[in-house]
Amino acid sequence: MNQELIPLVVGGLGLLMALIIFMVVNKMPAGEGKVKEIAQQIHEGAMVFMRREYTLLLIFVVVIVIGLYLGFGDWHTPFAFVLGAFCSGIAGYFGMFAATKANVRTTVAANEHGAAKALSVAFYGGSIMGLTVAAMGLLGLGALYMMFGADPHTVESIHGFGMGASVVALFSRVGGGIFTKSADVGADLVGKIEAGIPEDDPRNPGVIADNVGDNVGDVAGMGSDIFESYCGSMIACIAIASTMSVGLYSQIAERQQDLMFLPLALSSTGLLCSVLGIFLVNMFSSKKPDVALRFGTMGATVLFIIAAYFTIHALGISTQVWQCVLLGAVGGMIIGLVTEYYTGGKPVRDIAKGGETGPATVMIAGLAVGMESVVVPVITLAGIILGTSILLPEGAGVYGVGIAAVGMLATVGITMAIDAYGPVADNAGGIAEMANLGAETRAITDGLDEVGNTTAAIGKGFAIGAAGLAALAIIAAFIQVISNQVDGFSLDIGNPKVLMGMFLGGIFPFIVSAMTMRAVGDAAFDMIKEIRRQFKEIPGLMEGTASPDSKKCVDIATKAALRRMMGPGALAVAAPVVVGFGLGAAALGGMLGGALITCVLLALTMANAGGAWDNAKKYVEKGNLGGKGSDVHTAVVVGDTVGDPFKDTSGPAMNILINVMAIVSLVIAPLLAKMPYGIFA
Amino acid sequence: MNQELIPLVVGGLGLLMALIIFMVVNKMPAGEGKVKEIAQQIHEGAMVFMRREYTLLLIFVVVIVIGLYLGFGDWHTPFAFVLGAFCSGIAGYFGMFAATKANVRTTVAANEHGAAKALSVAFYGGSIMGLTVAAMGLLGLGALYMMFGADPHTVESIHGFGMGASVVALFSRVGGGIFTKSADVGADLVGKIEAGIPEDDPRNPGVIADNVGDNVGDVAGMGSDIFESYCGSMIACIAIASTMSVGLYSQIAERQQDLMFLPLALSSTGLLCSVLGIFLVNMFSSKKPDVALRFGTMGATVLFIIAAYFTIHALGISTQVWQCVLLGAVGGMIIGLVTEYYTGGKPVRDIAKGGETGPATVMIAGLAVGMESVVVPVITLAGIILGTSILLPEGAGVYGVGIAAVGMLATVGITMAIDAYGPVADNAGGIAEMANLGAETRAITDGLDEVGNTTAAIGKGFAIGAAGLAALAIIAAFIQVISNQVDGFSLDIGNPKVLMGMFLGGIFPFIVSAMTMRAVGDAAFDMIKEIRRQFKEIPGLMEGTASPDSKKCVDIATKAALRRMMGPGALAVAAPVVVGFGLGAAALGGMLGGALITCVLLALTMANAGGAWDNAKKYVEKGNLGGKGSDVHTAVVVGDTVGDPFKDTSGPAMNILINVMAIVSLVIAPLLAKMPYGIFA
Repeated sequence: MNQELIPLVVGGLGLLMALIIFMVVNKMPAGEGKVKEIAQQIHEGAMVFMRREYTLLLIFVVVIVIGLYLGFGDWHTPFAFVLGAFCSGIAGYFGMFAATKANVRTTVAANEHGAAKALSVAFYGGSIMGLTVAAMGLLGLGALYMMFGADPHTVESIHGFGMGASVVALFSRVGGGIFTKSADVGADLVGKIEAGIPEDDPRNPGVIADNVGDNVGDVAGMGSDIFESYCGSMIACIAIASTMSVGLYSQIAERQQDLMFLPLALSSTGLLCSVLGIFLVNMFSSKKPDVALRFGTMGATVLFIIAAYFTIHALGISTQVWQCVLLGAVGGMIIGLVTEYYTGGKPVRDIAKGGETGPATVMIAGLAVGMESVVVPVITLAGIILGTSILLPEGAGVYGVGIAAVGMLATVGITMAIDAYGPVADNAGGIAEMANLGAETRAITDGLDEVGNTTAAIGKGFAIGAAGLAALAIIAAFIQVISNQVDGFSLDIGNPKVLMGMFLGGIFPFIVSAMTMRAVGDAAFDMIKEIRRQFKEIPGLMEGTASPDSKKCVDIATKAALRRMMGPGALAVAAPVVVGFGLGAAALGGMLGGALITCVLLALTMANAGGAWDNAKKYVEKGNLGGKGSDVHTAVVVGDTVGDPFKDTSGPAMNILINVMAIVSLVIAPLLAKMPYGIFA
Repeated sequence: MNQELIPLVVGGLGLLMALIIFMVVNKMPAGEGKVKEIAQQIHEGAMVFMRREYTLLLIFVVVIVIGLYLGFGDWHTPFAFVLGAFCSGIAGYFGMFAATKANVRTTVAANEHGAAKALSVAFYGGSIMGLTVAAMGLLGLGALYMMFGADPHTVESIHGFGMGASVVALFSRVGGGIFTKSADVGADLVGKIEAGIPEDDPRNPGVIADNVGDNVGDVAGMGSDIFESYCGSMIACIAIASTMSVGLYSQIAERQQDLMFLPLALSSTGLLCSVLGIFLVNMFSSKKPDVALRFGTMGATVLFIIAAYFTIHALGISTQVWQCVLLGAVGGMIIGLVTEYYTGGKPVRDIAKGGETGPATVMIAGLAVGMESVVVPVITLAGIILGTSILLPEGAGVYGVGIAAVGMLATVGITMAIDAYGPVADNAGGIAEMANLGAETRAITDGLDEVGNTTAAIGKGFAIGAAGLAALAIIAAFIQVISNQVDGFSLDIGNPKVLMGMFLGGIFPFIVSAMTMRAVGDAAFDMIKEIRRQFKEIPGLMEGTASPDSKKCVDIATKAALRRMMGPGALAVAAPVVVGFGLGAAALGGMLGGALITCVLLALTMANAGGAWDNAKKYVEKGNLGGKGSDVHTAVVVGDTVGDPFKDTSGPAMNILINVMAIVSLVIAPLLAKMPYGIFA
């Protein structure tokens, strides 16, 4: 068999597998009466959001396609762009469709069959997303590689695929993040604090929106985020390998084409290992959920590392390259473990203790934890950069960085499955609560949800590390593309243009964080007003004899999300174009460098501070330091509320921001190489 | 007259002027009875802290001197280092000594003569600090320039002066910042919230410590911060000019020596203009305080810009260099105005409005304001970099950046005077409150204090801009020193070592922020426990019949400050040495770049968020949105408490951090040039 067919075959298998799992899940009992009705509302709310989001996206896509066609004068890049957007869109849509079917089936399984069955269903629900992300990535990139990969004149068109994926991620992750947190913060502030009713109480008009938010933000948004990094790292490797000189690539491989194909081969291997990992989790589903999930990921990773060794040898590539894969895979684990510590260990208890002197000390402690948490992950990234530069011959180190990113992301099928499991379990609990299924069922879903919170935090850390590494590889590819065509091009920090670019680049993460935080704040404010209005104006709502108008709340969150994602989105796409053509390629390179560093640092700080605040609240709610209703509890709730947009809106937006900026730069690099000095400088 | 004597003569004049003003202030009535006693306690507390701080500093200095001697093998650099530390120490000590004399005399003047006289005294008190900083800088650097400036083999020793200044700044600013905010937060949390007594109530045992803190943090700390930037920018210009090739310098000046001397000439001019500015303020002291102060700074700046033109021409240097001075001076004003907007305009009212939905929305709004506030100042810095690179011939742009920094800082005599005026006025109000001098006096001091808060916020923005630009110039000098001796040395972002360095550099601002925030949190906690103990154990304290043990609180803050500044201090000094010799000069260069960007961004975010929270609280306290005692007030107090360490501890620590890292790198650059590739990589 032609080896280039492998990604398509494996991708096809992955998709088939996802379909089979979906059919299995879909056949399970979906509840009746109130349970069914609530699930239907969540499903519909999520689908309405997706449709409206994709409609808006379509306009964006058309504009960019026209721009790309005008810039390049042919249809290769625009085609790849559309394909990338399409693949990411399909993965997000199908994954979320499945998740909103699995949530209620998890509730029913917990109610009727107990914990093991419920874990299976929730995890199956998540693994549909995981498999689809990996499969669509392989199918799309595999097809493009067959079409454009062999000819050096067309290989650059593949970059367009990454840009398509990034634009979808921008909408899904940033829009989804604004949606989910405006609903969450709004529903909590009025429900828990003002009305004094518990979380997920069916009387609260914002609760359906909150549950919809888990799906659009944590399933579809997270999926598109990882999809972008997954494809971005492969594209970067292809780009770097394709621009290597004979003298360089022949030191690590027999044929240049093999180095270009390697990322696809590794990801194919990783997808197969992920499938095995999913079986492993299922085999151990009678054990405690965290043990089962850990067995699955660890098992898949170890298998992948071994299989990667043989893959690399089969392609006639040097063992040093395999060591880069190892660096990436191990690096991903280290970042995951550190995240687990900061969002679950002693730091969380310290934050809770800070609540004894009020919300201000909770804030100070949490911010300090978030800032401190950057140290090990960033050193890990620096270590990967150093390691690959030592392992590979001089000048090939950047290829190693790309391969490390591919190694970190190859088992995305299972890591993403576990990520998406979280919101499914969370939703299952929400449905149980809203439908009053009783304490026993709720205890099971709570148990699943708790594990889901930890996996979500780890997933976020992993996503940041992967996004950072992928962006780094894309930036390296950008530099190589320009250097190959512009004599003496370098990004010397001593060059004023590069330095100016670095300063400008540092601005974007801060301004996008501010914009997204403000968006959540404003939308939550609108949500609060609407919920207050409903409590006041709908007679019998508080007594439980009338139903709230949940659709109105979903609508508010949808509108806010769609409106407020435009600014950051336009900024991220336009900035590289404006700076690149206006101030020159050197300024753009500096900008990417400055943005990369600050994005990674801010993303880690916000994700981990948010996760730690969240768990500090949970720690107190378990009865520590006075428990629910105490002053300490009030203080940690403040921390959690600030942490919500931190960890689920602004933090994740950083991953997207840097990847969008990097991939747009890579796409325009061939054009920029023709006029590298800028119009204004 | 030999032109090299000018800095010494002008510096001497400045110092004389400061002494005369001090004698005038010291002769004014210092109050009697309770007023005198309280002032005495504040003065003594501040002096005790300074003595203990300087003792600890001495050990640090001795260790570094030994290290420098071992590294360089001669006494030039260690001597310059000691001189730098000595000059900075003298400026801080004398300035603070004077400020703790002026505070009570301001109170008395307000009580006996009214607003105009009180403004005069407070401003005189501050201007002693301003003049001493400028004078000691000129005297110290002027002397070194005469000793080492002419010989290319010894000129590098001058860098040691900057390192000495930086080490003192580290202790004064970081230690002072921890002191002042642990006292402030501790006293406020127990006093205002638990005991229900007003701010600055004499019964509160923490109040003296709080007032001492204003002096050690905002007078001595701020002074050493500005001193460091002031000298750092001059040193960077000397270093850059001294390493320029004939082909390069001859395009902008007749003699290389003139380019080296220019920063000293400009600063001398600036000091004379500052003296005139101080007279202007005094002339207008019968007007509203903000008008008088604005007349003084604006007048001095305009005068300086004109005088700089003639200075540059007199030295036979091209007009383009003067345009760089203009860029710096105007840039400083822009940054000041933006800071004023973010800490005083619409953003402040938005934050206060966020209080309607509780402390969480105050936090979110404030963080968003802080993050947004980076945009214009950073674009201004980028614009200065671009502007100087366009104005000057290629390769000389970095000299322009240095000169722009000198231009921004040349009128430090008056900007620092206005900065130091703030805490003097604040203290004056505290003394009036503690001594029960009545509403009328308090109204005058409140008026002075309010203006002081705005000037303090502007001063902070200015200090960050200046520190960033100075650090940038020092880093540029570092790159030039290495490049001159190592063939083909460049800091290409595409080089894995540079990139790795950038990531590592980004860590430091985050970890130092976390350390200093935590230090304030912990020390405030100890302070709270002590204040609670005194309220419980000292009979009659609450009734006002017994005195609190204020010394104990001063002692707690002192110990915490001294203990907790060691970590950040050691980190800042050791990191460049370890990374430089361990991973190589390229990694160190990358690290400085990464640290510079993140330091500037974090510093602006924290300073402006903190300033905005502070003023949002004041806005509510003026009776808006429910006024004091309302829920909105409780919410904004939380914001202010988080903002305290942001704006007065962690934020300012960033200025020091980047300057220490940069100057240490510049000092070790000649050694590093001999072994530029690192031991481990």
